[in-house]
Amino acid sequence: MQFTGANILSVGQFNPDAIQRVFTIADQMEPYAHRRKRTKVLEGAILGNLFFEASTRTRVSFGTAFNLLGGEVRETTGMESSAIAKGESLFDTARVLSSYSDIITMRHPKAGSVAEFAEGSRVPVINGGDGANEHPTQALLDLYTIAKELGHHGRKVDGMHICMIGDLKYGRTVHSLSKLLCLYKNVRFTLISPRELAMPDEVLNALTDAGHAFRVTDELVGEMDADIVYQTRIQQERFASLEEASLYRGKFRLNNEIYTRHYKPNTVIMHPLPRDSRAEANELDNDLNQNPNLAIFRQADNGVLIRMALFALTLGVADIVNKYDTDVVWFSNKARY
Amino acid sequence: MQFTGANILSVGQFNPDAIQRVFTIADQMEPYAHRRKRTKVLEGAILGNLFFEASTRTRVSFGTAFNLLGGEVRETTGMESSAIAKGESLFDTARVLSSYSDIITMRHPKAGSVAEFAEGSRVPVINGGDGANEHPTQALLDLYTIAKELGHHGRKVDGMHICMIGDLKYGRTVHSLSKLLCLYKNVRFTLISPRELAMPDEVLNALTDAGHAFRVTDELVGEMDADIVYQTRIQQERFASLEEASLYRGKFRLNNEIYTRHYKPNTVIMHPLPRDSRAEANELDNDLNQNPNLAIFRQADNGVLIRMALFALTLGVADIVNKYDTDVVWFSNKARY
Amino acid sequence: MQFTGANILSVGQFNPDAIQRVFTIADQMEPYAHRRKRTKVLEGAILGNLFFEASTRTRVSFGTAFNLLGGEVRETTGMESSAIAKGESLFDTARVLSSYSDIITMRHPKAGSVAEFAEGSRVPVINGGDGANEHPTQALLDLYTIAKELGHHGRKVDGMHICMIGDLKYGRTVHSLSKLLCLYKNVRFTLISPRELAMPDEVLNALTDAGHAFRVTDELVGEMDADIVYQTRIQQERFASLEEASLYRGKFRLNNEIYTRHYKPNTVIMHPLPRDSRAEANELDNDLNQNPNLAIFRQADNGVLIRMALFALTLGVADIVNKYDTDVVWFSNKARY
Repeated sequence: MQFTGANILSVGQFNPDAIQRVFTIADQMEPYAHRRKRTKVLEGAILGNLFFEASTRTRVSFGTAFNLLGGEVRETTGMESSAIAKGESLFDTARVLSSYSDIITMRHPKAGSVAEFAEGSRVPVINGGDGANEHPTQALLDLYTIAKELGHHGRKVDGMHICMIGDLKYGRTVHSLSKLLCLYKNVRFTLISPRELAMPDEVLNALTDAGHAFRVTDELVGEMDADIVYQTRIQQERFASLEEASLYRGKFRLNNEIYTRHYKPNTVIMHPLPRDSRAEANELDNDLNQNPNLAIFRQADNGVLIRMALFALTLGVADIVNKYDTDVVWFSNKARY
Repeated sequence: MQFTGANILSVGQFNPDAIQRVFTIADQMEPYAHRRKRTKVLEGAILGNLFFEASTRTRVSFGTAFNLLGGEVRETTGMESSAIAKGESLFDTARVLSSYSDIITMRHPKAGSVAEFAEGSRVPVINGGDGANEHPTQALLDLYTIAKELGHHGRKVDGMHICMIGDLKYGRTVHSLSKLLCLYKNVRFTLISPRELAMPDEVLNALTDAGHAFRVTDELVGEMDADIVYQTRIQQERFASLEEASLYRGKFRLNNEIYTRHYKPNTVIMHPLPRDSRAEANELDNDLNQNPNLAIFRQADNGVLIRMALFALTLGVADIVNKYDTDVVWFSNKARY
Repeated sequence: MQFTGANILSVGQFNPDAIQRVFTIADQMEPYAHRRKRTKVLEGAILGNLFFEASTRTRVSFGTAFNLLGGEVRETTGMESSAIAKGESLFDTARVLSSYSDIITMRHPKAGSVAEFAEGSRVPVINGGDGANEHPTQALLDLYTIAKELGHHGRKVDGMHICMIGDLKYGRTVHSLSKLLCLYKNVRFTLISPRELAMPDEVLNALTDAGHAFRVTDELVGEMDADIVYQTRIQQERFASLEEASLYRGKFRLNNEIYTRHYKPNTVIMHPLPRDSRAEANELDNDLNQNPNLAIFRQADNGVLIRMALFALTLGVADIVNKYDTDVVWFSNKARY
């Protein structure tokens, strides 16, 4: 895969070498994100951060990643109502807005819209989420987190056991992550969800084709030897009735008691934030906040590293970032975290 | 005209020398906008980009232009509801907000508001559109585009023939452009619109005073020897009834077939974007997208150059921009476009 | 008080030494804000400017202050609706968003929310207003303005006479300012408000404990020897009826005639902007705009200096700012104001 000048639209673009390349560069971004040093490699470059659908953290994460490389950010949030109302095509929008930046990150509620936009764009486009379709940087940061967390324990993605829990039908993140995991060997999946919210056949077929083993169930029972537990939200409105929802309530929850009973002492806990922290949520409880295996905030940190890596790669500066190093002279204790 | 420290509020401020000065500096901005090099001349300067009325592309174009000169951008979008509701005057708003930047660009729905704001401002103010009144940077970029496009064919603004089509009554852009063209010699105008949407007498009188010839009609007939065709949108709600609107539908449209039938092979096509690209729009069809004379996206590009030039001139750095040149080290193929 | 790495959440954190330190650094920021020179000390640092409640001028003031020190700004405006709707805790929000910046400024409609957020944050947090609770940078800029204005006349905060007028019950700014003034000696207060909107006992008790004298009244009568008159808005809806409101109308107003009749020729006029400039407002009239004692716009200017000082102090660069000085090469006449 040739990164320089390329669009990043789908996890389907990545082969194992490309992923390895992204992760290697992401590792090299850590000293900048942790403020041990900084770089000016993209000083003067402009990111067009186009969020036609609101998403504060993804938007700010992209903007921060670009700033950390030394670049500037121009932004839009929300539908460009006037132009849409006037019937402008995504091609025209792209033609115009791409004249204002060196690279574009874009979120849009409509599936396929980012690829359509990329057709008209004169600069590389990175998909920041196009409706129910794709959110490739989220999938990459999830995979990167898994590889990194397992690496701390001397384990690897190949041969690992991952347990995915919750809404596996509508959860875009677990679909994309599963597809990326098809590039690896001998991964075992335990897929726990209400039957109505089971992992789609399309994903299951991809797992089979990749030679992975999976088990589908609607209950968490017994001792799991999972390396990773990936928890997702179940939205109440997915059920036919409140009664049905309450039947399930708690069955797909993770708290300290359940974790201790069912998982290994070093099973890594992941979640595509935000999580519902209200008492009645039954999702991922705050009593796990002090557990060192709770990787959910490290996921957010890794998102910055992955996005920095993708910017550096698509703009062709990945190998010269450290030529523009300078010192950080202000207070920071980020390296502590 | 003295640019340094001046407000840019109206096309009426410009004489031929001032326009020539803006265009000369705009030409010099092209290497920066096309990423062959970059400049840090405004590094540390702050633009207050105040859009009290939403306009994504104008807002981002101003911000980008300032970034390309090395400066920072602080922004507001939408009415500052609390202060307005509390009855704050534009003078007070200007007094306060102008303490936060080195220069201000402002859009506001009310005619005259930007000039009123400028009274209270302690820094230069550039009008980014004040309701039905003025949008001088759009008029300048239109004129700059005309001069540049004709220049490629060895022609000039003096003596050209421009055909303006569509809503000439409410179209702010064609009014301002016409006024600017009064600074030139022997321009011929063909003004095609529904009778209800004809060019106002005030503009026609200005054309007469400038010694220009014009023809007013409601139909595009026969071979036009136009150098420029400037197409604008007709909003359906301008007509008394849908029936009336449908009578006109298609009469003020431009597509490949109409272009070939009525225009010269090198007539330049312009439009103040966004254009309506829906099939039923009958405005400016996508089948002209591959026509090299379609200048609508080059207009957007030129907008960045014009805005860079105005920033450089009003902040008094136009002649030292290249003293702060540095290299562009990242991927760009903008120079290709 | 140790500033480096600290949160700035409440005026209660400050002792006289800490205030003196902030004001000394604020004084040193003036050449940068007035564009006589600039600094790159925070070049590469990122401010997370999180305004969960809209406030254009406070938001832009923080952003500008950070830009003036050389740093970059990433922003959010408005409630992060999706995450809130999904039940995310402020702790989680802080954990995630603080990984995107070096320091955070935050406004939120809920009292106590900024402190709660700071618990989860991995970087210093500055309170930009948390509902009815606190807005410490406003209080500091008010106090700084008083000290500076009196200093021009050879007077001091100790021993001064301040007259506060208007809504003293709900006015967050007069409460915080009063608390800060308790750190000084022998301040005299004249507190003029409708009885229903009188200064709360809690504040009065604090004044007594500090050894200050105060007089509570609902009328401005006779000659005041006030050094400062601090005018605030009375919102009509605070009264039981429109009739009652109209009884009071004009009693708590300041215009040129009232100023001349009741105050000394050099009494400094302050107001926590925005002010209502409509004819019927009866608040602080435009006929005082040319009065050199009207300090309301200098308050806004001082806000930038105070915020620069707090950034420099909490990020530990206050004493090295001038090591990163460079020249301002563009037009500015800010030093004139």
